Amino acid sequence: MCGIVGYLGHRNVVEVLISGLSRLEYRGYDSAGISVMQNDEIVSVKAQGRLKNLEAKVEGRHLDAHLGIGHTRWATHGAPSDVNSHPHNSNDGKISVVHNGIIENYMELKEMLQEKGYTFLSDTDTEVIPNLLHLNYEGDLLEAVMKTVKQLKGSYALGVICTEEPQKIVATRKDSPLVVGLGEGEYFIASDVPAILNYTREIIYLNDGEFAVLEGPALQLFSAEGLSVERPTTTITWNAESAEKGGYAHFTLKEIYEQPKALRDTMTSRIVPGQPIKLDDIHITREMLLHYSRIYIVACGTAYNAGLIGKVAMENLSRIPVEVDVASEFRYRNPLIDNRTLVITISQSGETADTLAVLRDAQTKGARVIAITNVVGSSISREADDVFYTWAGPEIGVASTKAYLTMLVALYAIGIHFAELLDTKTAEELDAIKKELLTLPEKVAEILAHVEKVKDFAQRIHGEKDVFFLGRGLDYQIAVEASLKLKELSYIHSEAYAGGELKHGSIALIEDGISVIAPITQRDLTEKMQSNIKEVVSRGAKVMAVTYAENEDVAKYADEVIYIPSTLDLIAPILAVVPLQLLAYYVALYKGLDVDKPRNLAKSVTVE
Amino acid sequence: MCGIVGYLGHRNVVEVLISGLSRLEYRGYDSAGISVMQNDEIVSVKAQGRLKNLEAKVEGRHLDAHLGIGHTRWATHGAPSDVNSHPHNSNDGKISVVHNGIIENYMELKEMLQEKGYTFLSDTDTEVIPNLLHLNYEGDLLEAVMKTVKQLKGSYALGVICTEEPQKIVATRKDSPLVVGLGEGEYFIASDVPAILNYTREIIYLNDGEFAVLEGPALQLFSAEGLSVERPTTTITWNAESAEKGGYAHFTLKEIYEQPKALRDTMTSRIVPGQPIKLDDIHITREMLLHYSRIYIVACGTAYNAGLIGKVAMENLSRIPVEVDVASEFRYRNPLIDNRTLVITISQSGETADTLAVLRDAQTKGARVIAITNVVGSSISREADDVFYTWAGPEIGVASTKAYLTMLVALYAIGIHFAELLDTKTAEELDAIKKELLTLPEKVAEILAHVEKVKDFAQRIHGEKDVFFLGRGLDYQIAVEASLKLKELSYIHSEAYAGGELKHGSIALIEDGISVIAPITQRDLTEKMQSNIKEVVSRGAKVMAVTYAENEDVAKYADEVIYIPSTLDLIAPILAVVPLQLLAYYVALYKGLDVDKPRNLAKSVTVE
Repeated sequence: MCGIVGYLGHRNVVEVLISGLSRLEYRGYDSAGISVMQNDEIVSVKAQGRLKNLEAKVEGRHLDAHLGIGHTRWATHGAPSDVNSHPHNSNDGKISVVHNGIIENYMELKEMLQEKGYTFLSDTDTEVIPNLLHLNYEGDLLEAVMKTVKQLKGSYALGVICTEEPQKIVATRKDSPLVVGLGEGEYFIASDVPAILNYTREIIYLNDGEFAVLEGPALQLFSAEGLSVERPTTTITWNAESAEKGGYAHFTLKEIYEQPKALRDTMTSRIVPGQPIKLDDIHITREMLLHYSRIYIVACGTAYNAGLIGKVAMENLSRIPVEVDVASEFRYRNPLIDNRTLVITISQSGETADTLAVLRDAQTKGARVIAITNVVGSSISREADDVFYTWAGPEIGVASTKAYLTMLVALYAIGIHFAELLDTKTAEELDAIKKELLTLPEKVAEILAHVEKVKDFAQRIHGEKDVFFLGRGLDYQIAVEASLKLKELSYIHSEAYAGGELKHGSIALIEDGISVIAPITQRDLTEKMQSNIKEVVSRGAKVMAVTYAENEDVAKYADEVIYIPSTLDLIAPILAVVPLQLLAYYVALYKGLDVDKPRNLAKSVTVE
Repeated sequence: MCGIVGYLGHRNVVEVLISGLSRLEYRGYDSAGISVMQNDEIVSVKAQGRLKNLEAKVEGRHLDAHLGIGHTRWATHGAPSDVNSHPHNSNDGKISVVHNGIIENYMELKEMLQEKGYTFLSDTDTEVIPNLLHLNYEGDLLEAVMKTVKQLKGSYALGVICTEEPQKIVATRKDSPLVVGLGEGEYFIASDVPAILNYTREIIYLNDGEFAVLEGPALQLFSAEGLSVERPTTTITWNAESAEKGGYAHFTLKEIYEQPKALRDTMTSRIVPGQPIKLDDIHITREMLLHYSRIYIVACGTAYNAGLIGKVAMENLSRIPVEVDVASEFRYRNPLIDNRTLVITISQSGETADTLAVLRDAQTKGARVIAITNVVGSSISREADDVFYTWAGPEIGVASTKAYLTMLVALYAIGIHFAELLDTKTAEELDAIKKELLTLPEKVAEILAHVEKVKDFAQRIHGEKDVFFLGRGLDYQIAVEASLKLKELSYIHSEAYAGGELKHGSIALIEDGISVIAPITQRDLTEKMQSNIKEVVSRGAKVMAVTYAENEDVAKYADEVIYIPSTLDLIAPILAVVPLQLLAYYVALYKGLDVDKPRNLAKSVTVE
């Protein structure tokens, strides 16, 4: 994780760095720090905790510099602390580095440097880099960086400054994201575009292994081999404002309420009744599809949970066998991949390290890869063979909400597209699904307009330590995601069980007064699910059900029932999860927690 | 669940019923009850809770009868209570019924009977049966039962007595197990063999839809159509003693310590280095295997957890794609099954209702089904096309231990067998695996001989509310089972995460002082797993690792390390789970819980 930012230009660099870091806090917020070039000396200020701690520390320093680098950290090596914060400097204070990624061989490098007399203050992997740069420095910072990264194993995006060349920032990346921003006689580096969107919309996406040298009024790019390269600039068209809270207490709540729009945007021009699904960036033919023996959906976290539903939807629609797996597990289990395999990777940020690694491995073994991602120009979107962009807009809240819903729509759209190519469903059947999908924005809006019961239930359970979710069929998959949401936002230990599995062990945990939450949207399974509810009720559980409008029966057993508008069973999960997102939000709110930035979590997991 | 027993003969029926129920308590223990024919009147005695409550109630009654039925209950409809206990009688007290299963249409039948003036005392589904029998009775109990079951939807094993025919027990079954026992001028019915093994070893397994009439000195069997049928008797060769505790404090502990023997028995004659795997009851040829496009492993609870490991092992060995699913989910999601599908079902008891249903559905769709089960003659073993019997011996502890380990061996053996048929591994590679498998009994015994550290750790964590398990690769699958074991036995809310998924949400739950348990047996993944451990340690977690003898590194990060003997990574899970079974046992012991009979659980889940 971690976020880095760098600036060189006419403005006060401290303001630019703090502003940039404030937009990158979603990448981690264990600590933050900056190094600026003040009268040809490096001044570093670092503080554990949120950015405001750093701001307080900087305030008294009256810094007036125009070149510098900054960092917001998500701890991997060494606990969150001042001393483990970035930037890290060489022993003589002449070189300063910000780093996003993990250096796998840092222990070995550290021992080598210690033998040469270098000392280390922190527990981080990063601190080897400034000292290694110092060792390699022979009067040219770019050359030193090029030599140094050859010695590094692992992933990194780096920003480096040096007192010997006080007008220069050198940046490079491998397996961690980095963009360069171009202003009027000023230059930026950043882990992600929002950090610098207040200042410029002209962006260059640096490729793996490339170097950027920002110096005085010029920018030069070099390939891994040190040859000068040219790269096009991209003009960012979306608005910085659109990533602001817009009147809501939290980004997370705002993003939950943006879901009707996000769904509508994602479906627009792609799903039209009476017409085939239109996916501009997916180029898979009927012949190719007939050739594939299997689809793997691979992702992490909430995107994996979307995949669980995608599997059921896609098998139902296209009758191609689909297997879903967690990226960090899939890549290490020698999966059966060949040129008859189609892989679908899902990642909101498009930078998730394990997912990106799966994409590359799969391509190496001959598979074709479709990416579902929310970020245009992200690593995953650039390297995939086909792309489905969810047009959810920037998602700032660490717990994914609107991105998740649009990922579901993406999976249904691809499933329908495959069904059209393979003729596994009639045009009428598919048209019925398309029409229902198009009603979802309105139905989600209806759910969002009536939240009193959800708030009441959140009030009731917010003091609890353990909560269980139960579901059958697609409701189980929804329960898994709803449980993750509650866990992430409220730190309540919640867990989701398949209704039929309860008796095979987990029911031992059901005791008097425990809360159980049960989505019930699958009409065929309603009776069986209600039997499971009776089992937990007879052991003292209090049950909240989320169910379709016509299911009056459940009110006999459940303590609280949230009704959602009717739709097809196949797509009902898209509705059922919405009140459960709200539940997680309000539980966290009543507990007084930081909803947008849950403890220990970061938005985009760009390390393994 | 539930267990039923019935007797007709020269002995005091009360003693036989209580003895039988005591051997069936593993099927449920929410309440127990008996109905006996005393001077041509039915006397029913019922008590909530364990069997000893019933015994106390019966003691003062001086019953002297020779025909009766008994029941031990696992609540599904209506809370555990005296009034909801079986047997249930008709309003006039002339018909008494014990029932195992669920009557799905009982509400409808109840309303119909209420309209006719019948009244109901309990909340159970069962109580409709004696009244429906009363309505249908026209002087012949067998005819009344035959007519009645035609009106029932759901699953049942029934034992019925009636004052009008005081020398008769009528029994029948559908989708719930029932055996008939034959003694010297005496007859028995029971849900399972151990209930009557003190009295007889001659057993008839009743088929679905069949009826048994026990009357005076005779036994008659009838088909669903009412035609007289003959069925062979089976002589049970195993010893009732072998199901006793044998000096251990609990069956569960005894069964954990029986694992070296269970493993040895299961491998004997099947796995011999230098020879092909020998599986007498599996008749799958190379040609058949080449025809299969996919294997599904389907099971519930611990057997499902065994399947998770089976998938990885089998794909690794045979390179056939394997998908694992929970039976209660699989059967309702319209899975892709045809005659190119091979299904492997796993069930210790061979009676698990959802698993049995999957077996039948799969066969209907043309698939071939292999059963892995511990019970010879069980429904699943009788209906499968091929069978692998785990020779673990009777498992009485509700939490499965030795059956799980032998299921793993079964899956590896089948995987090697397929690899031999398909030539996916060299004879040398397979021989190396066989040799290592054969060392497991000794290595498990070694683990069982050194339990001090496990006991210490159990002592330390037994007061905790939440515990997390972490693993990567096969260690994740082991973590899932270890977590279930802890949950079942100790009621601690434990949950297993894949190491790489931690950062995608669950790490929000890691706070100061929380316990994390990490099996680390996969050498390739050790470094990455240890990175994950550092992540939780830096957030305050206390970690216990279970790892292979050469891994000294982990002691730097973990608070406690349990070392297990070295073996191949592929089969290491079989060893790693053993100390974690013991951990679950000792935590429950220190909490003062009923280890052999965890609350809410039953051994064999014969309802959905």
